[in-house]
Amino acid sequence: MNIAILLYDRFTALDAVGPYEVLSRVPGAAVTLVAAETGPVRTDNGRLALLAEHSLDELAQPDIVVVPGGPGEVAARAGEPVLQWLRKADETSTWTTSVCTGSLILAAAGLLDGKRATSHWLALDALRSLGAEPVPERVVFDGKFVTAAGVSAGIDMALSLAASVAGEPVAQAIQLGIEYDPQPPFDAGAPDKAPAEIVNVLRGNSRFVEGPQALAARG
Amino acid sequence: MNIAILLYDRFTALDAVGPYEVLSRVPGAAVTLVAAETGPVRTDNGRLALLAEHSLDELAQPDIVVVPGGPGEVAARAGEPVLQWLRKADETSTWTTSVCTGSLILAAAGLLDGKRATSHWLALDALRSLGAEPVPERVVFDGKFVTAAGVSAGIDMALSLAASVAGEPVAQAIQLGIEYDPQPPFDAGAPDKAPAEIVNVLRGNSRFVEGPQALAARG
Repeated sequence: MNIAILLYDRFTALDAVGPYEVLSRVPGAAVTLVAAETGPVRTDNGRLALLAEHSLDELAQPDIVVVPGGPGEVAARAGEPVLQWLRKADETSTWTTSVCTGSLILAAAGLLDGKRATSHWLALDALRSLGAEPVPERVVFDGKFVTAAGVSAGIDMALSLAASVAGEPVAQAIQLGIEYDPQPPFDAGAPDKAPAEIVNVLRGNSRFVEGPQALAARG
Repeated sequence: MNIAILLYDRFTALDAVGPYEVLSRVPGAAVTLVAAETGPVRTDNGRLALLAEHSLDELAQPDIVVVPGGPGEVAARAGEPVLQWLRKADETSTWTTSVCTGSLILAAAGLLDGKRATSHWLALDALRSLGAEPVPERVVFDGKFVTAAGVSAGIDMALSLAASVAGEPVAQAIQLGIEYDPQPPFDAGAPDKAPAEIVNVLRGNSRFVEGPQALAARG
């Protein structure tokens, strides 16, 4: 089972590595990081680079496609090569998936027209404008399309996907192996749970990473 | 604020990238991936490589040290250069931290002698044998030493650490930014929660990644 995780300049690392960590443990899975060109691909802040092992041409027919999000999604969905690869890969894929604003790239490729899908909570309107039917849920299945909410939601999505392809016991073994028994120190991970002031700061920034800076500046 | 994340051959990707995703969003933080040598460093299954941007010598005095775990920890803690770097870095660090079996490396360097610490649930006995006092909790603070349980626990650890260094509003903004509102499809992320058969399969394997394979073979 070939799993391709798409990388592009200024992707968000956890969007890609969360699903990698889960899906690479599915028996028989071979995960490959792909990009327009092989070599290092840098994250949104430039401080981390993942190596793309293969170019898009070299992995044309993955069984599962995973598209991470990140500030670079705007440029990624403006680039015809990525959209063409996605459309082609989707013709034969068993599952076509995304994390965070990766769903905007799938939508831009025309793959989510009229489909129920999710994205980062700040990107649900953009998702609608690209033709999908946004659903504010953490993981959304619509046929073979599986989309996850922001960044960390890729872990939950990948566990659901692992259960679909390999059965619940395998998914549970993976969950136990990565000790995914989350205990966040705060209950602030969704806009209806976080303090209103923090939600407002993040809403005021088009780039999610600037939220904490703005708060720190206010003291 | 300089944050060094240690890489070594056969580390576990999410152990490093979970904390990276959180800590890189702390205002003023500069996260650097370091290793014995610069260049690509491969994960436990060889399918993913992160780029080490600096060698250990080049980043001798980080403010925060993060040591991920993974099957390669055995070789890592047998190598004097890594242990020497950790001892030296710890002399001036504000926080010395680990995820999963990364705590075994810290302990092997002599940094956790008599200290309360945690690790992957399968590694708590090994942690004791290296001189620490194992605590089966998700995140353990003992002075400036902060250790996290297995793999995914690094996200929880990093959020607590972000609150300590930058305040709770900043940590909450980061949590909301990465939409960390976990909703695992199963409640199997800890040995006292997962089905007994699955716990037994994982206990029977010295390498955590083999658990799912063993279950799939049976299933």
